[in-house]
Amino acid sequence: MSHNTFGHLFRFTSFGESHGPAIGCVIDGCPPGLEIDETEIKAQLVRRATGKSRHTSQRREKDDVQILSGVFEGKTTGTPIALLIENTDARARDYENIKRQFRPGHADFTYWKKYGLRDYRGGGRSSARETTMRVAAGAIARKWLKMNHGVEIQGWLAQLGPIRTDENMSWETIEGNPFFCPDPEKVPELEAFMDALRKSGDSVGARVNVVARNVPAGLGAPVYGKLDADLASAMMSINAAKGVEIGAGFESVAQKGTQHRDEMTKDGFLGNQAGGILGGISSGQDVLVSTAFKPTSSLRIPCRGLDIDGNEVEIVTKGRHDPCVGIRATPIVEAMLALVLMDHVLRHRAQNG
Amino acid sequence: MSHNTFGHLFRFTSFGESHGPAIGCVIDGCPPGLEIDETEIKAQLVRRATGKSRHTSQRREKDDVQILSGVFEGKTTGTPIALLIENTDARARDYENIKRQFRPGHADFTYWKKYGLRDYRGGGRSSARETTMRVAAGAIARKWLKMNHGVEIQGWLAQLGPIRTDENMSWETIEGNPFFCPDPEKVPELEAFMDALRKSGDSVGARVNVVARNVPAGLGAPVYGKLDADLASAMMSINAAKGVEIGAGFESVAQKGTQHRDEMTKDGFLGNQAGGILGGISSGQDVLVSTAFKPTSSLRIPCRGLDIDGNEVEIVTKGRHDPCVGIRATPIVEAMLALVLMDHVLRHRAQNG
Amino acid sequence: MSHNTFGHLFRFTSFGESHGPAIGCVIDGCPPGLEIDETEIKAQLVRRATGKSRHTSQRREKDDVQILSGVFEGKTTGTPIALLIENTDARARDYENIKRQFRPGHADFTYWKKYGLRDYRGGGRSSARETTMRVAAGAIARKWLKMNHGVEIQGWLAQLGPIRTDENMSWETIEGNPFFCPDPEKVPELEAFMDALRKSGDSVGARVNVVARNVPAGLGAPVYGKLDADLASAMMSINAAKGVEIGAGFESVAQKGTQHRDEMTKDGFLGNQAGGILGGISSGQDVLVSTAFKPTSSLRIPCRGLDIDGNEVEIVTKGRHDPCVGIRATPIVEAMLALVLMDHVLRHRAQNG
Amino acid sequence: MSHNTFGHLFRFTSFGESHGPAIGCVIDGCPPGLEIDETEIKAQLVRRATGKSRHTSQRREKDDVQILSGVFEGKTTGTPIALLIENTDARARDYENIKRQFRPGHADFTYWKKYGLRDYRGGGRSSARETTMRVAAGAIARKWLKMNHGVEIQGWLAQLGPIRTDENMSWETIEGNPFFCPDPEKVPELEAFMDALRKSGDSVGARVNVVARNVPAGLGAPVYGKLDADLASAMMSINAAKGVEIGAGFESVAQKGTQHRDEMTKDGFLGNQAGGILGGISSGQDVLVSTAFKPTSSLRIPCRGLDIDGNEVEIVTKGRHDPCVGIRATPIVEAMLALVLMDHVLRHRAQNG
Repeated sequence: MSHNTFGHLFRFTSFGESHGPAIGCVIDGCPPGLEIDETEIKAQLVRRATGKSRHTSQRREKDDVQILSGVFEGKTTGTPIALLIENTDARARDYENIKRQFRPGHADFTYWKKYGLRDYRGGGRSSARETTMRVAAGAIARKWLKMNHGVEIQGWLAQLGPIRTDENMSWETIEGNPFFCPDPEKVPELEAFMDALRKSGDSVGARVNVVARNVPAGLGAPVYGKLDADLASAMMSINAAKGVEIGAGFESVAQKGTQHRDEMTKDGFLGNQAGGILGGISSGQDVLVSTAFKPTSSLRIPCRGLDIDGNEVEIVTKGRHDPCVGIRATPIVEAMLALVLMDHVLRHRAQNG
Repeated sequence: MSHNTFGHLFRFTSFGESHGPAIGCVIDGCPPGLEIDETEIKAQLVRRATGKSRHTSQRREKDDVQILSGVFEGKTTGTPIALLIENTDARARDYENIKRQFRPGHADFTYWKKYGLRDYRGGGRSSARETTMRVAAGAIARKWLKMNHGVEIQGWLAQLGPIRTDENMSWETIEGNPFFCPDPEKVPELEAFMDALRKSGDSVGARVNVVARNVPAGLGAPVYGKLDADLASAMMSINAAKGVEIGAGFESVAQKGTQHRDEMTKDGFLGNQAGGILGGISSGQDVLVSTAFKPTSSLRIPCRGLDIDGNEVEIVTKGRHDPCVGIRATPIVEAMLALVLMDHVLRHRAQNG
Repeated sequence: MSHNTFGHLFRFTSFGESHGPAIGCVIDGCPPGLEIDETEIKAQLVRRATGKSRHTSQRREKDDVQILSGVFEGKTTGTPIALLIENTDARARDYENIKRQFRPGHADFTYWKKYGLRDYRGGGRSSARETTMRVAAGAIARKWLKMNHGVEIQGWLAQLGPIRTDENMSWETIEGNPFFCPDPEKVPELEAFMDALRKSGDSVGARVNVVARNVPAGLGAPVYGKLDADLASAMMSINAAKGVEIGAGFESVAQKGTQHRDEMTKDGFLGNQAGGILGGISSGQDVLVSTAFKPTSSLRIPCRGLDIDGNEVEIVTKGRHDPCVGIRATPIVEAMLALVLMDHVLRHRAQNG
Repeated sequence: MSHNTFGHLFRFTSFGESHGPAIGCVIDGCPPGLEIDETEIKAQLVRRATGKSRHTSQRREKDDVQILSGVFEGKTTGTPIALLIENTDARARDYENIKRQFRPGHADFTYWKKYGLRDYRGGGRSSARETTMRVAAGAIARKWLKMNHGVEIQGWLAQLGPIRTDENMSWETIEGNPFFCPDPEKVPELEAFMDALRKSGDSVGARVNVVARNVPAGLGAPVYGKLDADLASAMMSINAAKGVEIGAGFESVAQKGTQHRDEMTKDGFLGNQAGGILGGISSGQDVLVSTAFKPTSSLRIPCRGLDIDGNEVEIVTKGRHDPCVGIRATPIVEAMLALVLMDHVLRHRAQNG
């Protein structure tokens, strides 16, 4: 059992607090012989970074990732790969005022209840800063999947607050705007919405979708090692996630069987309501996952809360925060998808040779 | 790693095929001293059983569960508890015609791709018959949670196809109808809908919700052992599940932070958008989970599919099937919730004494 | 984490008490397509059975193993294989007198301290009856290893009390006597020793060795997944085991490096002090393991002990017991070796393709 | 499953190569509230360090351990504790000559067989440098065990080559000599032996024993989670270990049951042949473990070996090596014992409250 480890055969264990000296992870189980260097990992980290536009937190971390072990002469050796990033723009003093307060909607209260103490600086371990390591580890997984199976993974913002953004998919648009929005016509609308939101001091939720193409059929396992169960866990483990769907997801509630079942012909499946997974095992179709992110609770708009002595207090959150955590979530859901798929490729070949 | 095991400290491993000689499970990690007998387990199994109304499969299994180990003089001993149920109403011949066919929407194709062979009788291992053991193991977990922490778990049908059923909750209604519908006025509507559906030969999806009350604050773990991540995995591992939500779920996409964050006063939380979990750890509020079930693909309405040689064939599914698997899903989601909570109680007290 | 599970990718979970209704296990992770039937498993069980000679316990169990799942049309399907054996010669009344006593050298006291209660009938879960399932699961592993890699496993009695038995190895002798003694000239000596011992009411220890041939090089993993560490755990988990050696074992304490290091030439290694494992990974040489078994503490010679109220009592153990548990240990150490090797073959091909 | 992780609830994952930039570990599952700082960890590291006497390797590492996470305001927070040590005295050039050679008795050949490549610098991952992190993690475990249960752990050198060193135990002597020898009269003999050995260019094996006092009764678990099985795995996972004994160990082979069974009176056990463990569970007696270490194979005395192309070569090992790895093994076996005990305390209280 492992509180801070993800995966079974391609495992990664992360550590580090938002405003501690460093964050990092150890990846265990990576096959030997994969060419990888810090530049490739950094390329993914940049996609997730704060401070790139006015619509995200203004914390500016260099995210200079170091590979401390497991790579020799440019290739993975099969031994554990440790990645380390020093925190360079931590600003613990921002959190002095919430040192003794529980911010509603945050982990402050529950960490206190669990541990009897907490590192209050920027959420400590519960900060989204931890997702940096998911993206870093995911960069290795996605490269391996790409090199060995041609797997392609792409996420996008599907909805931000009231704005649905993926009705007209333009794949090449996604990486060209700060929202990972796939519809170029929606970008100005998003900018205007976010400017107004920021001004209001409020935050908003989002939906982020992701697809993996060229996933081999046969990944997954029956019953409690289902590929979709592991994906659900992966996505729900991301900060602020509140819901996960595979394929048709909640739309299947109102569907008939004749609508939902994806018929097969010699040319392949006639639909993909299943989202690429049947009976917990990949079918070779695109794997489709959708994740709901709640609006962050770190607002400068005051609200009612308690302090650690049980007194009622007015709580105002300072510090540098994302008004919509979903904006930066795309690289994270991609990473989690890569991590799950890679783990399952290794699991599959263990049992099936 | 374990393909057929659920949980970490309260672990259960299930086995058995739909039309094999028996199904069963081994529960490892149950604390000693819990009074339990077959009658209590059976009481939960009856809630899940087929053949109780015309709206579910007509397979009639006695589900006479035997405790083979781990209980001595009426109490758990701390050693593994093995439960066994013989299959008494298997009818393998129903499946002769699909022996060489892949039923669309089923695990036939993917099991074949994974293993190169399959037990085709009634879906073999991928059959919902496996959920019997979830309910059996869950009966032990829920009794322990009730005795030790006063936890109460109750699920209900929230939607069946187009019919929303929980806008007027009547808790005492739930157990008095074959749908686990909480609104007595909706029951006739459901019956009429299902009668028409059955006549049409089609199937339909459903949404099942569940609540756990009196869950102690502090359950869960940071980052990859989050209570909500484990719940997502648990629910998504149930046959036919396509989506999972915690608390506000996908509604949080369109919410503002000021709407979503549950403020706190001395009298407690002022809302429960969070569904009882903050930062992956229980807050002491009700834990709320919602699961989407797809319409089953076992229909007598023909569709296009392939056989194992790659030929196109017309597929018609005979056998005894549920036109809406969501109808019997309530005891299963309750069991999965109990299993996750119990595992987390043990995990919590391991680290936190 | 799993108290009653052995292995990682080829996992087996056992259950059952010595005098309960049945014992059994679930094997998860077996590759599909292996031909196996009850007869082959039973052939191994017979080697372990009691009651075959006057030198072992006279309990006579039929050990009629049933395969309840995971095998279809004579082949493994990749889903969990459940094995069940009903206890047919349990005699719980033999243990009425120790119901409230802690037998020295047994698990009675420690189970009581751990759980606060215990199934006292024949040791309950701590009985050597559990090893039946190790042998049953091991039968599957050894067949798979043989079919896929040509691995051959053979154990033997190396010492019984003061009698060293393997100075003149005759491999074909091993299976032809009740001791698994490899030296035909030592068999009469063993018989005489055991007859006198039985008459005296005392018991004796033993050493059992085992070799695996044709083990592929590369099995194992660095540091905490070492093949030798897993073998040590496997052997030490057998009832009554008190020591484990790999290759030269404790003799290496007094060796010089020039004696111990196995030099290599084009014709292979010039020695096997290493026991086939270097740096935790198999070298392709024979894997050699030696295990020490203590003398059982179930004696009809009285001794001082305590009852559950803390009173001093004279303890005499009735029931049917082995005066030397090492006599029947050979098939068990073979099974454990097979289980470890198979797990590591699957682990190896997961990471190394 | 985890190749580089040790433990289940108190888990630590190590990383790093002998001559890479750094080594480190992540400890997951440490209870919150334990006071710990770098000084306390360093105090243990110093005991294991090379370069303290002429009898060990002359590599001089500062072992300045940094706590990167999981400790806040001097106390553990319950989140992962990352420890990092930079390698400051690596000298990779020493290994240029064995870049393409397999040193007999080392992991060179088997790593190559497993991974197809290797970090040849000082053994890379297979170097004893990894044990630094075991001692660091163990320092946290032993402090927690001491504070919470009064557990005391002490190891000693029991034999070095032909010299038995613990027939006259003087506990206070152990820490006052470079061998961890408990008999002051044997120290000059050891020094003379080692001086001659070093001069000869050869190496020698050793036996290291360890005791844990005040271990609570009830730790361990039946069958596959036995405390002794976990100890066997722990000790055998240490570099160069070839054998492990609990209590009487291999002496029990020749014992009678009347000799071995530790009788009990109101005053406690009358002996400790069991080594503090019965049926896999601690009895409250001293836990006694003995480990055999082989002589290292890194010798300047030439021997026959192969290179990676299969050619026969004469191999001479340069670099800085320990002529007896057992000399520095005492803090390592202590650490492994602490890690196992702590894991089992957490496991016990999970199931038993």
